Amino acid sequence: RINGERLWDSLMELAKIGATPKGGVCRLTLTDLDKQGRDLVTRWAREAGMSVTIDKIGNGFMRRPGRNNSLPPIMTGSHIDTQPTGGKFDGNYGVLAGIEVVRTLNDHSIETEAPIEVAFWTNEEGSRFVPVMMGSGVFAKAFTLEHAYAATDTEGKTVKDELERIGYIGDQEPGDHPIGAYFETHIEQGPVLEDNQKTIGVVSGVLGIRWYNCTVTGMEAHAGPTPMALRKDALQVAAHLMQEVVACAHRHPPHGRGTVGMVHVHPNSRNVIPGQVKFSIDLRNATDAECESMDQDIRAVATKLSTKTGLPIEIEMVSNYPAQVFHPDCVDAVGRAAAKLGYSHMPVVSGAGHDAVYMARLASAGMVFIPCKDGISHNEIESAEPEHITAGCNVLLHAMLERAGT
Amino acid sequence: RINGERLWDSLMELAKIGATPKGGVCRLTLTDLDKQGRDLVTRWAREAGMSVTIDKIGNGFMRRPGRNNSLPPIMTGSHIDTQPTGGKFDGNYGVLAGIEVVRTLNDHSIETEAPIEVAFWTNEEGSRFVPVMMGSGVFAKAFTLEHAYAATDTEGKTVKDELERIGYIGDQEPGDHPIGAYFETHIEQGPVLEDNQKTIGVVSGVLGIRWYNCTVTGMEAHAGPTPMALRKDALQVAAHLMQEVVACAHRHPPHGRGTVGMVHVHPNSRNVIPGQVKFSIDLRNATDAECESMDQDIRAVATKLSTKTGLPIEIEMVSNYPAQVFHPDCVDAVGRAAAKLGYSHMPVVSGAGHDAVYMARLASAGMVFIPCKDGISHNEIESAEPEHITAGCNVLLHAMLERAGT
Ligand SMILES: NC(=O)NCCC(=O)O
Ligand SMILES: NC(=O)NCCC(=O)O
Repeated sequence: RINGERLWDSLMELAKIGATPKGGVCRLTLTDLDKQGRDLVTRWAREAGMSVTIDKIGNGFMRRPGRNNSLPPIMTGSHIDTQPTGGKFDGNYGVLAGIEVVRTLNDHSIETEAPIEVAFWTNEEGSRFVPVMMGSGVFAKAFTLEHAYAATDTEGKTVKDELERIGYIGDQEPGDHPIGAYFETHIEQGPVLEDNQKTIGVVSGVLGIRWYNCTVTGMEAHAGPTPMALRKDALQVAAHLMQEVVACAHRHPPHGRGTVGMVHVHPNSRNVIPGQVKFSIDLRNATDAECESMDQDIRAVATKLSTKTGLPIEIEMVSNYPAQVFHPDCVDAVGRAAAKLGYSHMPVVSGAGHDAVYMARLASAGMVFIPCKDGISHNEIESAEPEHITAGCNVLLHAMLERAGT
Repeated sequence: RINGERLWDSLMELAKIGATPKGGVCRLTLTDLDKQGRDLVTRWAREAGMSVTIDKIGNGFMRRPGRNNSLPPIMTGSHIDTQPTGGKFDGNYGVLAGIEVVRTLNDHSIETEAPIEVAFWTNEEGSRFVPVMMGSGVFAKAFTLEHAYAATDTEGKTVKDELERIGYIGDQEPGDHPIGAYFETHIEQGPVLEDNQKTIGVVSGVLGIRWYNCTVTGMEAHAGPTPMALRKDALQVAAHLMQEVVACAHRHPPHGRGTVGMVHVHPNSRNVIPGQVKFSIDLRNATDAECESMDQDIRAVATKLSTKTGLPIEIEMVSNYPAQVFHPDCVDAVGRAAAKLGYSHMPVVSGAGHDAVYMARLASAGMVFIPCKDGISHNEIESAEPEHITAGCNVLLHAMLERAGT
């Protein structure tokens, strides 16, 4: 069993770097604070006897050798960058749980057959630079190193320059070493475990995610003198379609999700009928076939609505992350570990994207979820119970040991 | 008959002050450009033999004496401030049409019994300082001079300081002189005249306007891991209510108007379920009773929706401009003038607020509308036909002569 207090203390120590007044953490990727976080985590790894290598996109690999170092490592990890109004646990927990696994093995002088590696992936959050899950994406060759290097923040600074500036541009080629299996512990970021009063979520896979920009074009006009019958009100048509995004999710149970999170109204003036409305659509489902069906559903609704109202509607897909089913080897290892340790557990899907999605393209992969308070994350009030933090790490330990061999 | 070419030339000359690349005008109230506009208009008035007085809120009164100067003046006017992306005609036409009336009387050496006054009212547009229709509102004692003086723009500059700075703070007490009758010529700012192919709109009154801020509060959550059934999506409830604003207008024909022009979504992020949505509601109708009925209608719908969804909905009224029926004396004078001159004409209501609404509280008042292209105003592409500009001014001339006596 892992040392829950030590893991909790490490989480609180790391959370001091970029701590916000409301109890959260703001540690954007490739900032000075991110460098301080990386320095602390790699110092802890070295103190635990691990070697540290950094690849060209700044991913860190902290390695504990096995008895047979020609075997590919059993890997765990996550990210330590946060949202602007992030919490203490998202990502950070997955990295520090990995270090705690190694500290526990050291405490009990347990050798593993395969080596163990703990990774921290660069820029999972995507709030400073897009695409999200950048480091693991480059590692899995989902896009090129050059593409990632060229990404700029709002000030025009590039990923490459910022990596160099904070001294975390390594010389290892991303993706150059094989992986035996990959596990990631993470807070659920949703309310399902809490709602079901379970300690451990055995993650069977991650929903496919499609992001769209939608534009409805009408005609700007004065709210007073323009009779109702002569209006081309872009917001009214957009409001209808926004509701259809949710209806579309309900038409694709049980895993369909539909969200409009971002809206821009032009000219956004109290007494002007909106001439143009742009909004985002986020569609998710458990299989690519279901994602595709939702895509066709919402496009058909939009076409009908456009014909009926005479207002042009444009729907442009801007991102497509395919659904990922995790390998039964890893999923079952997580389930067995939870059962053996006596934790209440249930199968869940991950609604959010994670670095594990990219790792699943390279090796068998699985995830361990623990509840977070009210299902809230990406928020300074994000919170998790110490006993759940401990439980998730114990499950990780046993699942990794099963795969690494002792 | 007035000199249409001279009026057009004056309009084009004034439009040079603050001209925008797209052919519009940006001459915000109490700016240096507004001062230049005021200087030009008052110079033209003096050249036409008029005296000029300025009151404490910067309203200008340009006076042509009558035979009997103990009679209250027959007044016309409008405003020369514009929206940030304004056109050449909105307001400016009403002021310059008044000056053209005087020039025409001079051309033909016509004396009137009552004096003629042409007013330009400070800050009709309300885009730099609220409330809108500020100068005429102070004049009609709708609110106090002190209230208007204290209004600040986004940089924190006050109306009083800006009036002083541009040298247009007069010593006349606003509202100190009686008015015999008030006429205002204006572009329609809507599509009704164009749609009916009429040259002159005989304005019977102005719709009552109620402005509201509406807030729907839900719970911010991650768009991925939060199942549809466990969401408190503020935008979905807001989208429903936005459509009800339009439905409410349709339930109150023929003059009911309902518009949502401004929307702010929080936190406005692609993969976050909106936790709060604020939006504006603009309700209009021809009588205060109908405005009140629309008010109660939309509040009842909101209460039902809030009960059904469990999400709090707040509706706060921020402005209330009562409906104004114009005096038959003036309305009929406009109608008779249009008929006499042989212009096609129809009765219309004004959907937009105008300085004439406040003047109607002090004297009998009326308005003359002319078509504007596609009903568009508050837009750089605002456009009106020279022949309509001429026609409206001819109607103004004859209506004023009827009331002033020759
Ligand atoms: N875990 C997480 O927040 N990923 C970001 C991508 C998404 O799922 O919206
Ligand atoms: N004429 C005009 O645009 N007035 C502003 C107030 C309003 O009617 O919305």
